[in-house]
Amino acid sequence: MGYIAMNREHVTVLGLGRMGTALADAFLSAGHPTTVWNRTAGRADPLVARGAVRAATPGDAVSAAGLVVVCVLDYDAVRALLAPVAGSLAGRTVVNLTSGSPEQARAAAAWAAGHGFDYLDGAVMSTPPGVGSPASMFLYSGSPAALAAHRDTLAALGDPVDLGEDAGVASLYDVALLGVMWATLSGWLHATALTGADGVSATAFTPVAVRWLSAAVTGFMEAYAGQVDAGHYPGDDATLDVHRAAVGHLVHAGRDRGIDGTLPELSQALIGRAVDSGYGGDSYARLVELFRKG
Amino acid sequence: MGYIAMNREHVTVLGLGRMGTALADAFLSAGHPTTVWNRTAGRADPLVARGAVRAATPGDAVSAAGLVVVCVLDYDAVRALLAPVAGSLAGRTVVNLTSGSPEQARAAAAWAAGHGFDYLDGAVMSTPPGVGSPASMFLYSGSPAALAAHRDTLAALGDPVDLGEDAGVASLYDVALLGVMWATLSGWLHATALTGADGVSATAFTPVAVRWLSAAVTGFMEAYAGQVDAGHYPGDDATLDVHRAAVGHLVHAGRDRGIDGTLPELSQALIGRAVDSGYGGDSYARLVELFRKG
Ligand SMILES: NC(=O)c1ccc[n+]([C@@H]2O[C@H](COP(=O)([O-])OP(=O)(O)OC[C@H]3O[C@@H](n4cnc5c(N)ncnc54)[C@H](OP(=O)(O)O)[C@@H]3O)[C@@H](O)[C@H]2O)c1
Ligand SMILES: NC(=O)c1ccc[n+]([C@@H]2O[C@H](COP(=O)([O-])OP(=O)(O)OC[C@H]3O[C@@H](n4cnc5c(N)ncnc54)[C@H](OP(=O)(O)O)[C@@H]3O)[C@@H](O)[C@H]2O)c1
Repeated sequence: MGYIAMNREHVTVLGLGRMGTALADAFLSAGHPTTVWNRTAGRADPLVARGAVRAATPGDAVSAAGLVVVCVLDYDAVRALLAPVAGSLAGRTVVNLTSGSPEQARAAAAWAAGHGFDYLDGAVMSTPPGVGSPASMFLYSGSPAALAAHRDTLAALGDPVDLGEDAGVASLYDVALLGVMWATLSGWLHATALTGADGVSATAFTPVAVRWLSAAVTGFMEAYAGQVDAGHYPGDDATLDVHRAAVGHLVHAGRDRGIDGTLPELSQALIGRAVDSGYGGDSYARLVELFRKG
Repeated sequence: MGYIAMNREHVTVLGLGRMGTALADAFLSAGHPTTVWNRTAGRADPLVARGAVRAATPGDAVSAAGLVVVCVLDYDAVRALLAPVAGSLAGRTVVNLTSGSPEQARAAAAWAAGHGFDYLDGAVMSTPPGVGSPASMFLYSGSPAALAAHRDTLAALGDPVDLGEDAGVASLYDVALLGVMWATLSGWLHATALTGADGVSATAFTPVAVRWLSAAVTGFMEAYAGQVDAGHYPGDDATLDVHRAAVGHLVHAGRDRGIDGTLPELSQALIGRAVDSGYGGDSYARLVELFRKG
């Protein structure tokens, strides 16, 4: 890979757990000279066999490249790892792909600014096997200069999605998107339990559910996003009155089959509260107000 | 439209509410000679202006075509409407697009068999403006002969999805898919409340959420469907232990921002119960067992 590597930015990866290993692997596959370090040194062996350079210490690793990607367990580990080498980071860029809270990301950005290095926070919206695919989203927020300078390199990991200057936003999206995932997967598993009670296999039901989500439900989200921002929820297509009638059928069908009702009853309670407050003619998007009010 | 109509099957539509009107309109647009009837006769006026034939009574309407599509408020209305004309239905096909329970659909199919007419139950997975688009799913179950004979005609309404002989299955899918929709929309609205608290607009967040659902979450569903059917849930990609750590961040981020926690706390409770039962190494699909057990 020699002559290709000549044209590619040198990268350092700190942390070679399941995710860090996938990241380093994707950089190698894209022809980037890659220096790696992990607390348990042996985890670097397969990467070294693929052409990575093993650094003996975090300080050596940081000094090897202008772009330092960090992916360890949590922000406490990030701090424990980077604090001793903060002096060597000045003038470089740190991209932190460790999961954490928006507040932790903002604190890390402030700490980086105090030590004279560029900081970009990131969230990996993929499992390790998805790393390297342009279909996988990598969310970034923080230093715009860092993203502009290293965007092509970071594209080796997945599609970079720019969320702006506030370093906390990538983590906020991360946790919000996981929340959407849990809600959707729980709704889908409940539906497979319900249809399964009448002998429908999950393998038969799921393609229809996937199509319904992709072609219809995401369209409702796109249509309702403007309603959420405007705080105005006209029920042009389907009203909460209509949802209330239909959710009763779901609760009933589940009870008839002995399926746990907690999830549909939550939908029913939310819809019922909004209707009882006089919003029966509004769209489903009105429910955002119930979440906001806590 | 004369010469096109010559080649198209004659259809009768009973019930011209918002949905029935859209159905009759789609048949007319596709060039089908269409006879219509509604309890409140005046609602037929716009369709008659577009070329539909008004029937004076349900009996006249039924006698006009071999294919009779019914879409009224509920199954009680279906029975009230069809019972007096049951004798005229013999040898014809009734497609019932009224929403109801699987049990109601099965009872209607049995009643149809007793009166010598073919019965196909259907569920419209669209609002009225989506009728006529091949992107809209129309779910059918019941008489295979009826679907085979009228599939091309029914395709004028939307894409016909064949769910087999058990007349109750279309209604069961209907209510199950609506459950997936409510769970997903609630998760998304909660996420917009969370990100909105830090100044992110729903219009900015939603395209990322749509992409996440379409490109990633539906992929997890496809991957887990086989696990649900097999009753075996290997956590190859992401384990419940990992979900448990991450869902804590979501609950925490919501509390910090004063967002209602009911929905993420439900995810947290489900994940926690499965982990506490010793399934921390399993995938999220394991939770189907909690729904099944009630
Ligand atoms: N796996 C996924 O699907 C996924 C998806 C999105 C985001 N993430 C995030 O990516 C990060 C890493 O996850 P992973 O799956 O790679 O976890 P992992 O396989 O458990 O690896 C954890 C890594 O952190 C290192 N580490 C822990 N404490 C440390 C410390 N105090 N100092 C230095 N290194 C330390 C470990 O080093 P040792 O080898 O020495 O223990 C190891 O390299 C996490 O924040 C995770 O939430 C993971
Ligand atoms: N709208 C949607 O987005 C949607 C989506 C999927 C499924 N659906 C289902 O489609 C069906 C119709 O919904 P819709 O939106 O068209 O409702 P709608 O606008 O309220 O219309 C109801 C229709 O039912 C008729 N009707 C009620 N009781 C009757 C009776 N006893 N005898 C004869 N006719 C009677 C009404 O006649 P009058 O005009 O004389 O009152 C009217 O034609 C419902 O089962 C609904 O769940 C609707």
